[in-house]
Amino acid sequence: MSEKLNQLNEILGEVSDLNHAGSVLGWDEQVNMPPGGSDARGRQLATLGKIAHEKATSQEVGKLLDELKYEFAGSDSDEAALVRVAARNYDKTMRVPASFVAEQAIAASKAFEAWVEAKSKSDFSIFRPHLEKVVDLVKKYVSFFPPSDHPYDILLDDFEPGLKTAEVQEIFGNLRPKQVELINAIKLARQVGDDFLHKKYNEKKLWDFSEKIIAKFGYDFSRGRQDKAPHPFETSFSVNDVRITNRFEAGSPIATIFSAMHESGHAMYEQGINPAYERTPLENGTSLAVHESQSRMWENLVGRSLPFCEHFFPELKKAFPSQLDGVTAKSFYKGINKVLPSLIRVNADEATYNLHIMLRLEIEIGMADGGIAVKDLPEIWNTKMQEYLGVTPPNDAKGVLQDVHWSGGMVGYFSTYALGNIISAQLWEAINQDIRDLDDQIRKGSFDQLLGWLREKIHVHGHKYDPQDLVQKVTGERIDSAAYVRYLTRKYSDIYGL
Amino acid sequence: MSEKLNQLNEILGEVSDLNHAGSVLGWDEQVNMPPGGSDARGRQLATLGKIAHEKATSQEVGKLLDELKYEFAGSDSDEAALVRVAARNYDKTMRVPASFVAEQAIAASKAFEAWVEAKSKSDFSIFRPHLEKVVDLVKKYVSFFPPSDHPYDILLDDFEPGLKTAEVQEIFGNLRPKQVELINAIKLARQVGDDFLHKKYNEKKLWDFSEKIIAKFGYDFSRGRQDKAPHPFETSFSVNDVRITNRFEAGSPIATIFSAMHESGHAMYEQGINPAYERTPLENGTSLAVHESQSRMWENLVGRSLPFCEHFFPELKKAFPSQLDGVTAKSFYKGINKVLPSLIRVNADEATYNLHIMLRLEIEIGMADGGIAVKDLPEIWNTKMQEYLGVTPPNDAKGVLQDVHWSGGMVGYFSTYALGNIISAQLWEAINQDIRDLDDQIRKGSFDQLLGWLREKIHVHGHKYDPQDLVQKVTGERIDSAAYVRYLTRKYSDIYGL
Repeated sequence: MSEKLNQLNEILGEVSDLNHAGSVLGWDEQVNMPPGGSDARGRQLATLGKIAHEKATSQEVGKLLDELKYEFAGSDSDEAALVRVAARNYDKTMRVPASFVAEQAIAASKAFEAWVEAKSKSDFSIFRPHLEKVVDLVKKYVSFFPPSDHPYDILLDDFEPGLKTAEVQEIFGNLRPKQVELINAIKLARQVGDDFLHKKYNEKKLWDFSEKIIAKFGYDFSRGRQDKAPHPFETSFSVNDVRITNRFEAGSPIATIFSAMHESGHAMYEQGINPAYERTPLENGTSLAVHESQSRMWENLVGRSLPFCEHFFPELKKAFPSQLDGVTAKSFYKGINKVLPSLIRVNADEATYNLHIMLRLEIEIGMADGGIAVKDLPEIWNTKMQEYLGVTPPNDAKGVLQDVHWSGGMVGYFSTYALGNIISAQLWEAINQDIRDLDDQIRKGSFDQLLGWLREKIHVHGHKYDPQDLVQKVTGERIDSAAYVRYLTRKYSDIYGL
Repeated sequence: MSEKLNQLNEILGEVSDLNHAGSVLGWDEQVNMPPGGSDARGRQLATLGKIAHEKATSQEVGKLLDELKYEFAGSDSDEAALVRVAARNYDKTMRVPASFVAEQAIAASKAFEAWVEAKSKSDFSIFRPHLEKVVDLVKKYVSFFPPSDHPYDILLDDFEPGLKTAEVQEIFGNLRPKQVELINAIKLARQVGDDFLHKKYNEKKLWDFSEKIIAKFGYDFSRGRQDKAPHPFETSFSVNDVRITNRFEAGSPIATIFSAMHESGHAMYEQGINPAYERTPLENGTSLAVHESQSRMWENLVGRSLPFCEHFFPELKKAFPSQLDGVTAKSFYKGINKVLPSLIRVNADEATYNLHIMLRLEIEIGMADGGIAVKDLPEIWNTKMQEYLGVTPPNDAKGVLQDVHWSGGMVGYFSTYALGNIISAQLWEAINQDIRDLDDQIRKGSFDQLLGWLREKIHVHGHKYDPQDLVQKVTGERIDSAAYVRYLTRKYSDIYGL
């Protein structure tokens, strides 16, 4: 390896260490920290972030990258990918003045506070001026980059490197009518029962059950752990220390199991990344969408499948005989897949989820290119909800104010959730080509081959490839919704007898 | 505040943030980390340490301190103390070459491994060459500093700023014959019973009980927490996030309660430091000995006192009626204070503990000045054990190999444990001068005035004063064992009817 690459790796290794230290502090903040610790923790995280930023944007890094870019141009090696990704990160960071980052952080902090209040009072007017400021800053952020086909491209690229707005619009454009059609057909069908989901379950027993399932999936507890936190998330301190959090909601107790599946999907991805990529810019997953394809696959394509229900339901019933009295694997399967167009994205079922995302994407694109004014958001939101899902929010708290993302300045993020669903179905078809008896394996509770496939085709590559390239490499096609439509149609035809 | 002091505080604030981040990572390593996380954690800690060291030893800091030293010379203000302590730390760090620190870290890591093996095989010869290397490096470390009265002064100063070897020798010299005399008197007395200590206790119940006690002491759980770890320790991430760990040993279950008292003593100290000292070199306790005076006071002078037993024993008995059947507050008090000269320091009672320390101090001084050769340690150890405690280790695992400290290069540390005991008794006499009904208050479970006294006289000052100065300021005398001898004599005369 060249001496210059060694030098680069040494600096970026320290940046990685600092970022991972920050992740430990962030995890602790959510999982353990006593209330008093909050101020000092904020300062500590700020210092770690500042030093990491100084190191990542040092002149030395710029000089090394300038030279290494030529040395490794045109190669498909890991080293070339490392240099390419590092150069891209460096370029992005250098374009954005530190003063702007600080301004954005302050605006986001104020917008978050306003959003909390606005949501609790269901009063969009409280949030509106802050969101206008956030949108102004988003436009300013875009202005630091060379012009692209669409200003939203710049925002999307931070989460899905290389992906274009027009591509996402085309993917979603193909999907939307089919998904609306499916929902309309389901509306005419006989509804399935899910009373058992709303009974009382013992928290500790469900928690242990969730850990048993994800251990069986292949989540390695010797390199991870599950803790309680206000929201489920996955966080990684190294390939060999990848943790997840979960929660218990009395109103929706079984969700604990599916949250564990979801987060373990993220975590198994991170646990499967090539250890040689540690402390380099390749050490994390490809993109948010590809990450989400893994979490959704384990939660939905595995966890909410009939074969898996046939495998795990008998044991669940043994643990909760009274709650599941009269329920069969099949009726459990139907109940956990019940479709009901509703107001809140995070509670949406598979059939309706993507429509929540499409609505948000259209609004984000409009905010970025000026086609939509912040003041009109509540009306636009409600109109689109009626159009896509046939429901209208009774208030803004259950409408345009429901998600935290925009208050934090995160515009460009939402579509990755739907893209993850779409990619998961594409991968699923490819997997079933290679593992012909996958359903039988799942029915027997055997996940080795499935995880092995994902490890080899997706996980090990870390951040080496861009999302479109990786999907193309693995499935032979670019991101496309056809497989997802086939998956949804097959699944819900069975459940609703369409 | 001067512009230069602001600049200094900004840099030292970042050093503090980095060190605290390291503490979070270290705590997590002991409390939560899955086994796989260990390698990456080591690298992350090394990077944080390296950057903190670079910042703390930067030319800029040196220049600022040179100028500020003159500006604040002779003042007793907080700012002057800050500059004085910062300058001392800087001077110490700059004297020791980074290459030496690295060499010492590697030697310590190897010595630790050898010590683990040597202890498990009870074979000193495995440890001997490593300890010789450690001692050589200790001597080399001393050589970086200007000559002092005794080479051991340099080592002691890292833990007890300003304290001299001769002072400690004098303090211990006065104490030793009296402590030996006391033990000999106890040997002739009728032994007390402690069978109840060795029964089976429910872990969760004892744990909760321990938390109830320390919350009553004044340990603030909104700014701290107690977790399980292989060894009890206290660690501080800020004045408002001070955590302790504890363990449960089936063979010595009640120890959980006393460990909690001990660590809460350290933690209440850190929780009581002036918040204005945060992110400065004054933000921690005065010294290890003063720290230990707090932990020992809550564990022994409060926790193992008759008034406290009278307060808390009835509740303990309610929680464990079968285990404590036939035991009274008084017989409980006697049992937990049973004196029995034994081989292992960490299990020693109050009457014998300091003798274990004196033996170690003499050996450390001899190693530092060349008067004692490493090869002779087992023999010297066993001879002194017989002389001081009347017992002889059956093997080196229970003798010279029992403690981890030397394997980590920590020479100069041991005496702080005994000094802590001594200081705790001096403070106790001063407290009882000011709070005349302290025993009654303790008997009622009221600790507000006691903690308030400690907060005002000790805690709030953080690292502002050196240990001798602080003890002098609070008690009117320098560190001296007379109060401790009075305390031990009174306590054991009562228990053993001397």
